[in-house]
Amino acid sequence: MNLKAMIMEFPDFPKKGVLFRDISPLLKSATTMNYIVERFYEHFKHKKINTIAGIESRGFIVATALAIRFGCSMVMIRKQGKLPGRTRSIEYTIEYGKATMEIQEDAVSPGDRVLIADDLIATGGTAVAAARLIEGLGAEVAGFAFIVELARLRGRELLKGYDVCSLVVYDE
Amino acid sequence: MNLKAMIMEFPDFPKKGVLFRDISPLLKSATTMNYIVERFYEHFKHKKINTIAGIESRGFIVATALAIRFGCSMVMIRKQGKLPGRTRSIEYTIEYGKATMEIQEDAVSPGDRVLIADDLIATGGTAVAAARLIEGLGAEVAGFAFIVELARLRGRELLKGYDVCSLVVYDE
Repeated sequence: MNLKAMIMEFPDFPKKGVLFRDISPLLKSATTMNYIVERFYEHFKHKKINTIAGIESRGFIVATALAIRFGCSMVMIRKQGKLPGRTRSIEYTIEYGKATMEIQEDAVSPGDRVLIADDLIATGGTAVAAARLIEGLGAEVAGFAFIVELARLRGRELLKGYDVCSLVVYDE
Repeated sequence: MNLKAMIMEFPDFPKKGVLFRDISPLLKSATTMNYIVERFYEHFKHKKINTIAGIESRGFIVATALAIRFGCSMVMIRKQGKLPGRTRSIEYTIEYGKATMEIQEDAVSPGDRVLIADDLIATGGTAVAAARLIEGLGAEVAGFAFIVELARLRGRELLKGYDVCSLVVYDE
């Protein structure tokens, strides 16, 4: 299935100089979503994963679909101030600036093997911060699942040593 | 299954005087998520639904799970400035202030029957705005799926005439 042909490109969004890749069309087909989930499942099925962590907010879509397929827990990594109770937070650099994200302290525990899911990896700043949050709670990061990878931004280098699976890679 | 017993309550979050109901614990069990999805599926299965619209961002979780169960399209209703391309937007009132949300113009079409999904209904301002966006594009709102309903805020009255299914109702 040619996922790349379905992804729409929008120049200068959300700001000038950025070429935005939109995964919305992929979500509009149950067959396509099923294909995406199976690709990730095949890649990670032997990794003893018991938790999928979704990065707000499109990562929630990928994470939910994967949690259903793996029959496991789904946890949210959210923007600052959204999660109640005891949380851990981390500041990180994104393509368009700086941000803070958070996880609830009881989201994962030592022994958990966590697959971190997002729609897209760009510089990798978000992904590596998510890994630090998971690892800071004593759990293990078993891998990363991204639908889209913007390879020229070298996010994969920041994730060296991790099992990273991306389905659509843009080199330009 | 007693969903209410699993939902955590946090007083004065996100601000003083608000009692926050946290659905995070429900997501941590595949059995619980499956139960939630089946409850909604039983309620809406004869409604000829072909699209689930998720309201950013926890609504994405509910919508994704439902789209997989129904084997249908999932579309995003997002906060302002997040969706590329041609969009429609609407301003609405929420429990803690005012906001704008958007949908892509090609998200739904006349003839589509759309189930709008979110984690929680409070005043109903978000839900009714979502319905206006869907209907503004010529599609039909076949119903609303909420895990939690805060009944004293009377959101259901704003949605009079629609098929509203909520699984956990708080009267106090």
